Amino acid sequence: MKFSLSKRIAAEFLGTGFLVAAVVGSGIMGERLSAGNVAIALLANTIATGAALAALILALRPISGAHLNPVVSMAEAARGGISWYEAALYLIAQIIGGIAGTGCADLMFALPLFSISHHGRTGAPLWFSEFIATFGLILVIRTVARFSLDWLPIAVAAYIAAAYWFTASTSFANPAVAVARSLTDTFAGIRPVDLPAFIAAQLAGGFSAVFVSDWLGIRASDAPIEP
Amino acid sequence: MKFSLSKRIAAEFLGTGFLVAAVVGSGIMGERLSAGNVAIALLANTIATGAALAALILALRPISGAHLNPVVSMAEAARGGISWYEAALYLIAQIIGGIAGTGCADLMFALPLFSISHHGRTGAPLWFSEFIATFGLILVIRTVARFSLDWLPIAVAAYIAAAYWFTASTSFANPAVAVARSLTDTFAGIRPVDLPAFIAAQLAGGFSAVFVSDWLGIRASDAPIEP
Amino acid sequence: MKFSLSKRIAAEFLGTGFLVAAVVGSGIMGERLSAGNVAIALLANTIATGAALAALILALRPISGAHLNPVVSMAEAARGGISWYEAALYLIAQIIGGIAGTGCADLMFALPLFSISHHGRTGAPLWFSEFIATFGLILVIRTVARFSLDWLPIAVAAYIAAAYWFTASTSFANPAVAVARSLTDTFAGIRPVDLPAFIAAQLAGGFSAVFVSDWLGIRASDAPIEP
Amino acid sequence: MKFSLSKRIAAEFLGTGFLVAAVVGSGIMGERLSAGNVAIALLANTIATGAALAALILALRPISGAHLNPVVSMAEAARGGISWYEAALYLIAQIIGGIAGTGCADLMFALPLFSISHHGRTGAPLWFSEFIATFGLILVIRTVARFSLDWLPIAVAAYIAAAYWFTASTSFANPAVAVARSLTDTFAGIRPVDLPAFIAAQLAGGFSAVFVSDWLGIRASDAPIEP
Repeated sequence: MKFSLSKRIAAEFLGTGFLVAAVVGSGIMGERLSAGNVAIALLANTIATGAALAALILALRPISGAHLNPVVSMAEAARGGISWYEAALYLIAQIIGGIAGTGCADLMFALPLFSISHHGRTGAPLWFSEFIATFGLILVIRTVARFSLDWLPIAVAAYIAAAYWFTASTSFANPAVAVARSLTDTFAGIRPVDLPAFIAAQLAGGFSAVFVSDWLGIRASDAPIEP
Repeated sequence: MKFSLSKRIAAEFLGTGFLVAAVVGSGIMGERLSAGNVAIALLANTIATGAALAALILALRPISGAHLNPVVSMAEAARGGISWYEAALYLIAQIIGGIAGTGCADLMFALPLFSISHHGRTGAPLWFSEFIATFGLILVIRTVARFSLDWLPIAVAAYIAAAYWFTASTSFANPAVAVARSLTDTFAGIRPVDLPAFIAAQLAGGFSAVFVSDWLGIRASDAPIEP
Repeated sequence: MKFSLSKRIAAEFLGTGFLVAAVVGSGIMGERLSAGNVAIALLANTIATGAALAALILALRPISGAHLNPVVSMAEAARGGISWYEAALYLIAQIIGGIAGTGCADLMFALPLFSISHHGRTGAPLWFSEFIATFGLILVIRTVARFSLDWLPIAVAAYIAAAYWFTASTSFANPAVAVARSLTDTFAGIRPVDLPAFIAAQLAGGFSAVFVSDWLGIRASDAPIEP
Repeated sequence: MKFSLSKRIAAEFLGTGFLVAAVVGSGIMGERLSAGNVAIALLANTIATGAALAALILALRPISGAHLNPVVSMAEAARGGISWYEAALYLIAQIIGGIAGTGCADLMFALPLFSISHHGRTGAPLWFSEFIATFGLILVIRTVARFSLDWLPIAVAAYIAAAYWFTASTSFANPAVAVARSLTDTFAGIRPVDLPAFIAAQLAGGFSAVFVSDWLGIRASDAPIEP
């Protein structure tokens, strides 16, 4: 079953919106309830983000692929799964959807619709973290999509839940989500000035993973195969 | 295999009862053990609710569909999956089952069978939260039921676990459960006076999701399909 | 593939041993590390028990059915899935395996091999909790085993993880595990004097679930079916 | 689909690297954020390790088998699944990959690339813990790989998450990961002097599991079968 481009774009908009709402909203809730214990706030943030990703990819993958992430769309275009034109439209839908998600989360928690984040996230260790986080994400998506497509929602959710803790940057690994998170001055926020280096590191990590998975031989076919 | 209506209604009664017992009981346990750290209490509440949902939907979906939620039954009736008469009987079973679940949870924790909740939950941010929570729930159910029916229990459990944290209302998203939670003056309670606005927001969110998923083209068939 | 009775009994021994080691060991570890916060200790205990159950049932179900619980074996015998003679041997293996599991956990944590528990667990609310916990467990096992056998490990793990929190007794729901837990004076222990009432409540809950699932029509066939 | 030996070795290198990065990195993050509450730090460490294992085994099993552990490779060689020559190359890739993972984690958290751990882990209870942990791991892998191969990533992730809590050693159960963890003086570290006994206990546990699963009759075929 093939969905029209407009419906696929709507799915990317909705999915990225819910994803960002989950990241930002659970960050606010976690910070409010955890009485200053950042580990507990991040644990709640992790569970909410991982669970939301599993549900959203289960729901939307059959419609749009559930990329919810410009790096994923670009990696898919590089593989020939979608055209670069489609990838560009996906990217726009992801960014607008993500910003809408930030606004929804802020509204739910009775905060101003948007506010510029003052949460500084910068420095080589964090950039390296984003490189590693996105490298792993694209590697997992490429291999699981090819061999065990049914398990892709679980694999992505599990990977991101792990990466929230094993990278120093809490693994943004997603330029659209990063942009959206710059517009809320809460737990999950990031200063706009810190975005370019984060996004550059994400792109570098993602394309390194494309290169590595190509070398591994995971590239040519459109359809997933069983081992 | 088709179950008789009486058995399907019994399954909705049992399932909603266990669901509410899980929500209310784990709320009591969480509050008692967490020594005032609300984040830890909600974390326990989240894990118990999500895990209970996964087990109950795995167990009861083949019998009744495991709606356990009047909005789900109404959305299913709107799609033609069940008749409106059946949906009405499901709703009654869900409400009575949910109330029985509250009573069981209170008994297990040596509390009065029922007590009116004084937990105030009101205001536009919470109503908007319930709208968003139920919108997402119905969207996830519709799409996953159509494309990946085997994964529906996991998708619903994951979605609700996330929504406990990313909405300001901890995502009731279920009128029968909301009514049942008004009858226990514990962690999970809600004042009866706050119910009408919660339920209205849930219905608005649910029917918006029906509209959106219809537009996406997920409506016409009774049977799930593989992508 | 059919395993010999001796191998099936060995699987029940090993599985119940690991299950009890997981329950008792993670209780000790949780209590030691959580600095008096019982909610965090129980959260660790919950995650360890649920995860161990999923792994053990995935591993051993094809060999012995992975009952790991006398109530499950008796319910299976009542359904005609195994003979009562086999159920009796399973029960013995489960009790001996469980006791061995307690001993292993105590040894791993540098405690005496066995010590009589002084952890009092008594009173009608706890007995009612055990009734509800075991009722739900057998209902979930019966229905999931019949309709979605592949998901049985997840369903049982999720149910028990939830029941740790939504019952006041932390859901023993297993006579063999209860006996084994009476032999360690640690977090997960139970006084021997409290065992008979716990076990009676478990049996009552389990057989009520057999009755209800029989009424629902889930009884006659040996083989699982797809809906 | 059969991958060349060089690509399979690359997969073992990458997978063990990410696994160790997840273990070490989430240990650092957990310790930094948890304000001295070791239970919360270990909970974060557990969730990150289990989730990373699920994602990595989902991603890499079709390429190399995703052993990520010399004991697994040796058990597989003992079964005839791979040659002992291949097992030796896997082992080298796992050790080098694991050390690279430690370095990456340290870099992400702005620590020296390598530092010798001073975290003492010794004594009979811990050695017995490693024996039990590895015994269970290999038993789970053998049985699940034979009967429910699709579920292997979940089974291994769940088993290790449980074993983090139910063994006194937090279940290293992996010589390559143990070596890599000796090179970081952080939460997950282990003194080099404690390695030999840990590794000996792991090998003893692993080969005992091979013996037991052979006796159970789970040995002869290369291909997994359905029950």
